[in-house]
Amino acid sequence: MLTPDTIEKLKKTATSVRALSMDAVQKANSGHPGLPLGIADLGALLFSQIMRHDPQRPDWADRDRFVLSAGHGSMFLYSLLHLSGYGLSLDEIKNFRQIGSKTPGHPEFGHTVGIETTTGPLGAGFSNAVGMAIAETMLAARFNTAADKIVDHYTYAISGDGCLMEGVSAEAASLAGHLKLGKLIVFYDSNSITIEGDTSIAFTEDVAKRFQAYGWQTLAGDAYDVQQVASLVEEAKRETEKPTLIILKSIIGYGAPNKAGSHSVHGSPLGADEVAASRAHLGIPVDKDFYVFPEVYDYMKDCAAAGRKLFDDWNTRFNAWAKANPELKKEWDLFMSGDLSAAVYPPVKEGDKSATRVASGNTIQSLSESLPFLVGGSADLAPSNNTAMKGAGDYSAANRKGRVMHFGVREHAMGGVANGMLLHGGFRTFCATFLVFSDYMRPTVRLAALMNIPQIFVFTHDSIFVGEDGPTHQPIEHVESLRLIPNLLVLRPADAEETSLCWKLALEEKRRPSCMILTRQNLPWFKKNTDKEKTLKLGYFIAKDEANPEVTVLASGSEVALALGAAAKSKKRVRVISVFSRELFIAQSKGDIAKLLGNGAKVVAAEAGVTTGWKGLASEVLGIDRFGESGPGEKVAERLGLTEENLLAMIER
Amino acid sequence: MLTPDTIEKLKKTATSVRALSMDAVQKANSGHPGLPLGIADLGALLFSQIMRHDPQRPDWADRDRFVLSAGHGSMFLYSLLHLSGYGLSLDEIKNFRQIGSKTPGHPEFGHTVGIETTTGPLGAGFSNAVGMAIAETMLAARFNTAADKIVDHYTYAISGDGCLMEGVSAEAASLAGHLKLGKLIVFYDSNSITIEGDTSIAFTEDVAKRFQAYGWQTLAGDAYDVQQVASLVEEAKRETEKPTLIILKSIIGYGAPNKAGSHSVHGSPLGADEVAASRAHLGIPVDKDFYVFPEVYDYMKDCAAAGRKLFDDWNTRFNAWAKANPELKKEWDLFMSGDLSAAVYPPVKEGDKSATRVASGNTIQSLSESLPFLVGGSADLAPSNNTAMKGAGDYSAANRKGRVMHFGVREHAMGGVANGMLLHGGFRTFCATFLVFSDYMRPTVRLAALMNIPQIFVFTHDSIFVGEDGPTHQPIEHVESLRLIPNLLVLRPADAEETSLCWKLALEEKRRPSCMILTRQNLPWFKKNTDKEKTLKLGYFIAKDEANPEVTVLASGSEVALALGAAAKSKKRVRVISVFSRELFIAQSKGDIAKLLGNGAKVVAAEAGVTTGWKGLASEVLGIDRFGESGPGEKVAERLGLTEENLLAMIER
Repeated sequence: MLTPDTIEKLKKTATSVRALSMDAVQKANSGHPGLPLGIADLGALLFSQIMRHDPQRPDWADRDRFVLSAGHGSMFLYSLLHLSGYGLSLDEIKNFRQIGSKTPGHPEFGHTVGIETTTGPLGAGFSNAVGMAIAETMLAARFNTAADKIVDHYTYAISGDGCLMEGVSAEAASLAGHLKLGKLIVFYDSNSITIEGDTSIAFTEDVAKRFQAYGWQTLAGDAYDVQQVASLVEEAKRETEKPTLIILKSIIGYGAPNKAGSHSVHGSPLGADEVAASRAHLGIPVDKDFYVFPEVYDYMKDCAAAGRKLFDDWNTRFNAWAKANPELKKEWDLFMSGDLSAAVYPPVKEGDKSATRVASGNTIQSLSESLPFLVGGSADLAPSNNTAMKGAGDYSAANRKGRVMHFGVREHAMGGVANGMLLHGGFRTFCATFLVFSDYMRPTVRLAALMNIPQIFVFTHDSIFVGEDGPTHQPIEHVESLRLIPNLLVLRPADAEETSLCWKLALEEKRRPSCMILTRQNLPWFKKNTDKEKTLKLGYFIAKDEANPEVTVLASGSEVALALGAAAKSKKRVRVISVFSRELFIAQSKGDIAKLLGNGAKVVAAEAGVTTGWKGLASEVLGIDRFGESGPGEKVAERLGLTEENLLAMIER
Repeated sequence: MLTPDTIEKLKKTATSVRALSMDAVQKANSGHPGLPLGIADLGALLFSQIMRHDPQRPDWADRDRFVLSAGHGSMFLYSLLHLSGYGLSLDEIKNFRQIGSKTPGHPEFGHTVGIETTTGPLGAGFSNAVGMAIAETMLAARFNTAADKIVDHYTYAISGDGCLMEGVSAEAASLAGHLKLGKLIVFYDSNSITIEGDTSIAFTEDVAKRFQAYGWQTLAGDAYDVQQVASLVEEAKRETEKPTLIILKSIIGYGAPNKAGSHSVHGSPLGADEVAASRAHLGIPVDKDFYVFPEVYDYMKDCAAAGRKLFDDWNTRFNAWAKANPELKKEWDLFMSGDLSAAVYPPVKEGDKSATRVASGNTIQSLSESLPFLVGGSADLAPSNNTAMKGAGDYSAANRKGRVMHFGVREHAMGGVANGMLLHGGFRTFCATFLVFSDYMRPTVRLAALMNIPQIFVFTHDSIFVGEDGPTHQPIEHVESLRLIPNLLVLRPADAEETSLCWKLALEEKRRPSCMILTRQNLPWFKKNTDKEKTLKLGYFIAKDEANPEVTVLASGSEVALALGAAAKSKKRVRVISVFSRELFIAQSKGDIAKLLGNGAKVVAAEAGVTTGWKGLASEVLGIDRFGESGPGEKVAERLGLTEENLLAMIER
């Protein structure tokens, strides 16, 4: 039970969250006051009484995780980080949404201390939280002993109506229920208001019943009764087999006397008059901007001290555990560092003629045996994506040590869940589907790139060579459209050896996600330039050198073999370069690129996809600027003109 | 009640569907026998006894619609189209999945008569079916009279486990329940098998309960008891306030004695031995390929005759209705033809300085008043997307005549639902969200392009000028990545006048979807070349002409004003072209393009997004190849170097 004194302090803290939030939005003349005002009480309760966290140790491995899935309410989080002592200054609050501030419009991971994930695109945070809860169970299963639970934390998230209308949260919720993530607690800020008006215009489903159908516990309460909310959290914790959705009835913009409860308060400043009226209504000095009650700072300092004690206690236990379990401790360090020095890649087999998805599968298998922290899986396409790791075990409610994820046919949630697992720490992750379905999960690929996290996306069946499945399943624009996402490494290897090397590149990335773009069909091995380690980082291998070329052919993936075939038949001096990463290739100096292109040689490019992106490098491009057709891959290629003959003609003319 | 004789015929028909399906997959050595074998009985029942359709009149406006959301089971549909008399020959069945056949790997709208929508990407068909059911209610509300229901049909769909795991179906189902689409009947082929194995590895939710939570009726039965299934359909029809999900327990690959019930039968040919065993098991002559019992053809001929009678009866009623209601008939013809001659566009205001989203909103308003068949809406962003049509009424269960759709925060389903509405016929549709969230619905944009349907996607808030919302909400790569989708018209107008003209272009398209890419911020009007109608179709307007330019600047949208500003300050002779559609622009002849570019003049491009796509046209590109930042739009632009000064420097050097 909370004491009356604590409740009083919580209320004052909530009022301060409201004060900071409405003032910051007002000053920026931009932002979303509705959520922070609406559920400030929940925030005060969570950050002071419920969450196990130490603002001085934001990287504490066993801290509770918090995700504001409704990221537009960022001032909610910034206010609480400021009050809790995460080092976010009042000046930063005053600088809300300005260039260079630590308080951008939506919370950004890696930019502001205490932000666990970047949110804003609705529903994505929910899926991240599911991933974090999964990672917790995986670490707990590995490192907890009968004597000590060194991994034992909760994952909390706040979702609004918008998050829960999005398909990505539906997918993630179904998976979370299936996986019995008992330590995932999601608060649903049910304020019945969206941008177009009342939720009744579009969203009248029974959310509680839906979540029960997914296998969740659902509880309900009043967002302004902190004692009740605290009790509901206790109840959520008692249920260890099911994730819990706590539905809090709230009033958007609570505390703004004339605007609360209306959609006008969702995403626009209150206006000076309403700010003043709100201050009066809430008992904030009317003439004071960004006002925080002094006793709130005192209270939050006490809470931070309590958090520090939690950390210290954990740390003591951790040290004792480390001493008692030196082998486990060594493994813990390996998991936390993600050290790759033990990584084993399959040996290069000259003359190997396998699909790059198969080569990738072999690499994953080899890596899974040498890197125990590698986890991942597919959206129900493991046999096709070649992502199953034999001997690594299926992750499930019954086997938390399993490393093979079965995400189900849920690509969008898969990306978000995998991002959450990676963000949690302790694992390197990958996830997989057909390249054409990268479209289903594109928002999460983008978020990984924006967050600078080294997620690995495995996309197989990479072109019209998919064949008979036809145009719905044949990627045309996908490789190029992934290349357009900033800070994303797109790797399209041309043979088994390149595939293995690209995996190395992807794993060694620290601040960039990668996409492995892989073929369904077999590809022949080719002999590469000898300084492989060097050019690997530059995004290319020379497949056929020619000191003074008349024509240079740039190709990627399956088209490298095509280019080598055409080059062999050409009467000209032809250099062929396998550009497995165009981003890396063009990041070289202009001089280096010119040299590689043959200093004035005619440049031709070949790729089984849209030609747009190659036009800046090559004067002619053999590609495909229309949808594919259903038929055997080779025949489709012929029909669409992706032939050695046509490439040869380009080279010769 | 079905007679024993009918049941016998249905069983034989189902057996023939199995024969054709397994043989076609076997012959192609590619495809998915699992579904067609699993629910052949349902198909036989639907196409012969339940659906109101006339195979001779596949364009009958009041036909029941059928969507195979689980599109990989295409042989199910092809078999039934063949047997029903849709003109799909046995040779086409034998040519399954071959180049040029009418039987591609997944069903393709517009390619094969009787296919209502292209399916394969899972869950998409489900959302199309919701859209078709919506369109039916809209037409019914407008055209039915007390005396005559000339619009009164059902929409049937078949979903597998995969479809129901996808978020897009979850979003669409929630919307369908909310909208009380009583004439939507979805069969759930619940065979408990997915590609990775048993659904229990990833999908253990209570689907029935989930759909009840959405406001659906749920029924359950045995896929092999046709009498029961027929009764369930009757029960579904009796429920007029709720859509119905009929859950049929089935066995994947039913009839293949050694493989049924296993995931091996989902997506691979049975193999010659198992085909033979299946024939023996099913009572098909073992030595006969593609065998159809003669009595099945007879039976289906009788069913087709019954269908023809249904059409004739309807047609008689329709003619009587037309005679009795000449004004309604005129309106009906207008809706069915989509005739645009009455379209009114807002007048051009020289000197207008409004955001293109506002100009678009004015255009939509004007069009909504002149074109009564225009319907559309937003994924909860109407006030921001400027898509509300005043006076057109909100579409809802209570107001089927409403034309403003409230899709909720469900972008992916929105695209699929809008496609379904358009496919149904009778309406021109649009749907809207922020450009950055085009990623959420990209699969449905692609499907619209693949289907050659003139959907209109309104994407506002088109660049870093979104400003304070920050990088999660600032599109960088999105315009370019939409341009990569084949057969998609991407329109990025530069002022209010261009916006209105682009709407005209989009509406007049017959076989291509369009994206309207619109600004949040104001843009000044500019004077265009005089032959506007001509160059509109070529994707450009000349914003500043110069007979013999030294530099030509290509720009789009908000960067046209930037280019005009820089050109005005330049000491060189500069031509500025507003390339509002690069696809149209580059579709011109090489000579015409060279002439426009100034026959050897230096070419510079400017666009507030990734530079990749302009590099084939311009030697220098002013753009943004990194994520944005949170701050006022103008300041973000300055920070990222998107300035008149930098463009001027490019022009001058």
